[in-house]
Amino acid sequence: MIQERLKELDIILPPAPAPLAAYIPAKKAGGLIFVSGQLPLKDRALMLTGPMKTEEDSEKAAAALRQCFINALAAASGVCSPDEIKSVVKLNIYVASTPEFIWQHKAGNGASELARSIFGDSGVHARAAIGVPSLPLNASVELEVIFSLG
Amino acid sequence: MIQERLKELDIILPPAPAPLAAYIPAKKAGGLIFVSGQLPLKDRALMLTGPMKTEEDSEKAAAALRQCFINALAAASGVCSPDEIKSVVKLNIYVASTPEFIWQHKAGNGASELARSIFGDSGVHARAAIGVPSLPLNASVELEVIFSLG
Amino acid sequence: MIQERLKELDIILPPAPAPLAAYIPAKKAGGLIFVSGQLPLKDRALMLTGPMKTEEDSEKAAAALRQCFINALAAASGVCSPDEIKSVVKLNIYVASTPEFIWQHKAGNGASELARSIFGDSGVHARAAIGVPSLPLNASVELEVIFSLG
Repeated sequence: MIQERLKELDIILPPAPAPLAAYIPAKKAGGLIFVSGQLPLKDRALMLTGPMKTEEDSEKAAAALRQCFINALAAASGVCSPDEIKSVVKLNIYVASTPEFIWQHKAGNGASELARSIFGDSGVHARAAIGVPSLPLNASVELEVIFSLG
Repeated sequence: MIQERLKELDIILPPAPAPLAAYIPAKKAGGLIFVSGQLPLKDRALMLTGPMKTEEDSEKAAAALRQCFINALAAASGVCSPDEIKSVVKLNIYVASTPEFIWQHKAGNGASELARSIFGDSGVHARAAIGVPSLPLNASVELEVIFSLG
Repeated sequence: MIQERLKELDIILPPAPAPLAAYIPAKKAGGLIFVSGQLPLKDRALMLTGPMKTEEDSEKAAAALRQCFINALAAASGVCSPDEIKSVVKLNIYVASTPEFIWQHKAGNGASELARSIFGDSGVHARAAIGVPSLPLNASVELEVIFSLG
């Protein structure tokens, strides 16, 4: 069902992104899937680097976080079929920000809206969005996801 | 029982704060309630904005985080009665900080002490407190909470 | 078994670090153990303070995060025997960073590699690594851990 929905949305899951270090893309525990922090990698390159500064930057960051959600789903696919995922529980949204950038919530909508679009009602989730001074490889955004296996 | 304790403490839960974006205030999964990041909103206005700079700022930040905990309980009330909450599992405390502000743990006590005051022994929790350069809407603090349904 | 492995690695768990405030070192819920954010305390002193700036700093930060993982295991030991821990579920790695420091993932390997060394295959985990402007007591790193009781 989720795989059909991905087709309808013309989303092709990439291979699960290779971890940068001594960890794995996702781990099951207690009926949940904890997905490692995902960077906005597309075709092996970062879509967006450096800190966000102005409200206008929110849109670019939202597009990058949409890609992070696709990567998170790909990462989860390494430990279960997408169709086994019952719901999206929580997103943690990190946005590289100068002290003036205060629109992390707008940036986060790129991921949140895609979650709802793919999973419907069960894709609506709790979340937190915060600014950070910098992220691995100079990425502008990073996304953590908890899925539920139901 | 929790509702009685709130009365004793003269705490009136506000309506669950409206999400700023495409998400919900709280989500149940695996016997836990994951609450979305709460800002120090009181009567629809932020109690405290901008980064914390000096040790003296810790007290204002603690008062704001106390309010965030009240808002988190209000958010959880959207998915269960406060009396169904068995314990406070974890707090994630985010404090907008200049690089010189290193008292995030003092700020966090505003939330931690209220959790214990409301829930007694089962209100004592694990937590992490970190600095961030900026938060949504220029809020000075943000709080994530995980409750347990027991 | 985990206690034997710690002996083989010459790791002596310190007493669970005293919380800086109104919280506890670790809390059980839903088959998981949530460990409070651990600082790189060794013999009651911080091993590393201030923000990381250059790629070379990653090694010092990795050594400090290795110590944080030892402290996290000590913290978990307050609520269960180390031998009851089935797996390492997730690490959240916070590195005090200037905006130029973009190697939080390298720093995090200090904790990730020790987790695998102690717990073997079940020590491999999901994780997220982010930069922060500052941390409690001017610590350079902080580590959150979720263990599973299986």
